[in-house]
Amino acid sequence: MTNADHSQFKTTLLQLAKIVEESLIAYIDQWQIEDETLREAMKYSIKAGGKRIRPVLMLAVAKMLDKPYSLVLPYACALELIHTFSLIHDDLPCMDDDDLRRGVPTCHKVYGEGMAVLAGDAMLNMAFEIMFQDAQANIGSAKHLNAARIIAKAAGASGMISGQVLDLQAEGKEIAYEELEKIHSLKTGALLSAPLMSAAELCEMDAEEKVHLSIFAKNTGLIFQIVDDILDVVGNEDKLGKKIGSDHANSKNTFVKIMGIEKSNELVKSMTVESLEQLESIGCNTWFLEELTVFLAKREH
Amino acid sequence: MTNADHSQFKTTLLQLAKIVEESLIAYIDQWQIEDETLREAMKYSIKAGGKRIRPVLMLAVAKMLDKPYSLVLPYACALELIHTFSLIHDDLPCMDDDDLRRGVPTCHKVYGEGMAVLAGDAMLNMAFEIMFQDAQANIGSAKHLNAARIIAKAAGASGMISGQVLDLQAEGKEIAYEELEKIHSLKTGALLSAPLMSAAELCEMDAEEKVHLSIFAKNTGLIFQIVDDILDVVGNEDKLGKKIGSDHANSKNTFVKIMGIEKSNELVKSMTVESLEQLESIGCNTWFLEELTVFLAKREH
Repeated sequence: MTNADHSQFKTTLLQLAKIVEESLIAYIDQWQIEDETLREAMKYSIKAGGKRIRPVLMLAVAKMLDKPYSLVLPYACALELIHTFSLIHDDLPCMDDDDLRRGVPTCHKVYGEGMAVLAGDAMLNMAFEIMFQDAQANIGSAKHLNAARIIAKAAGASGMISGQVLDLQAEGKEIAYEELEKIHSLKTGALLSAPLMSAAELCEMDAEEKVHLSIFAKNTGLIFQIVDDILDVVGNEDKLGKKIGSDHANSKNTFVKIMGIEKSNELVKSMTVESLEQLESIGCNTWFLEELTVFLAKREH
Repeated sequence: MTNADHSQFKTTLLQLAKIVEESLIAYIDQWQIEDETLREAMKYSIKAGGKRIRPVLMLAVAKMLDKPYSLVLPYACALELIHTFSLIHDDLPCMDDDDLRRGVPTCHKVYGEGMAVLAGDAMLNMAFEIMFQDAQANIGSAKHLNAARIIAKAAGASGMISGQVLDLQAEGKEIAYEELEKIHSLKTGALLSAPLMSAAELCEMDAEEKVHLSIFAKNTGLIFQIVDDILDVVGNEDKLGKKIGSDHANSKNTFVKIMGIEKSNELVKSMTVESLEQLESIGCNTWFLEELTVFLAKREH
């Protein structure tokens, strides 16, 4: 990767994240919300930022297949709303009890627990409303409904929410690698795979290419989580925007705890290689997803 | 109303509630849920019962317009899931902090707070998945998507969730009648109106009839809430399955507190009369909805 490539990647990443952010803020500003404090709490949590990886993945697939961003943008925003809702609820005292997220106080620290529960609820609901609205605007076309169902399935009891439940139950217990992989494939993986696979539906990707994309998608989720666990041990607190060592303090099961740092690093490397191979098999304009894979594997926050 | 009419009403009410309950349990039993305790917590809350008024209202519209129950049943189940999710979150210590609901311990008392938050989340998500599934099965037909959007809008930040927020914020404050009506038209009214109006969409009700049904729907929500407030003062604890006087103890704003018992009773009576007039204007087979209106106004639990 040349410096020029890398700089083009960074520019594109920021550009895509900005498209998503502007669209999300516009949605919340224009949404019919009967209480302004609720709107504020929702906006606060969305503005608190993050890498916008999930929606960027959707836009990246559209880019790769030369489709307009507008085709996937409502679903990309829905995904980020679902992701943010899950963080708000995950941070609650009865769950992970986190005071800081991305360097700023968590929703319940600013708006109180009751409001944080409801702001999360409202964002999950809004995500579905946006998808229904788009499906309706597209006269219920099959690809739009398929995309919405992929996202809905990834978010619910067959995906992310069960991952949160399993994670909650495993706290303080010794678990095996397979169990940990299951937790994270549900808790983090499902919502990192959904943008890719739902975008593939919307962009009418070829069936054979979808097989490669689905392996790439599964790896992306795992790479993301393993790197998260590694950063909680060796990361830089300023870059992370949160204290390191919190997984250990909370008796969290992590890949590092089960396999050690070295093996965790090796696994990230081998999965990254496999991911890049899958992209090569897809063949078309995959440079941005390639760079993004390397970026996620080497990220420092 | 003759005794024979009343007995036929009771039989039909139980029959419709049973159709909904069996369908709900079948959904939860067959749903892809990755954790069995989560499935249990969801089933526990659904089984804890209640009058199933919202889904029954949907089936009642189908009955009135001579359409099959199967047309509205998935949406009726989605509505009951959304209603149950809202109760689980409303009962949490950071919200109303209730230990009992319908005479049995609330979800968080049995499964813990974290699980109760997630079981609620999973049920909201499942409601939307059911509606997407049905819209897909009906090849995205306009009436199915319209019905789903009516329900989604009623549940979210433009409906129920904002009602919960306003209710939370008004606790312990003196508020005027208009404000209280707004809170309840959102918190309770939206999800009591949605079954009627979404069923009208699915059953392709005539536009003029829909106008009468929408006034009926609005009244139904208010009657329901005012009676709730009255029962919290003069109700029978055994029949209610909860302690009376809890609104007062929690400094809740209620219609009784603002208008007194006598005026509250008068309002229920006059709104019931208006509701029955609206049904008369619809004209077709409305006997069950008429009986249901009287039943809701005179209920003791």
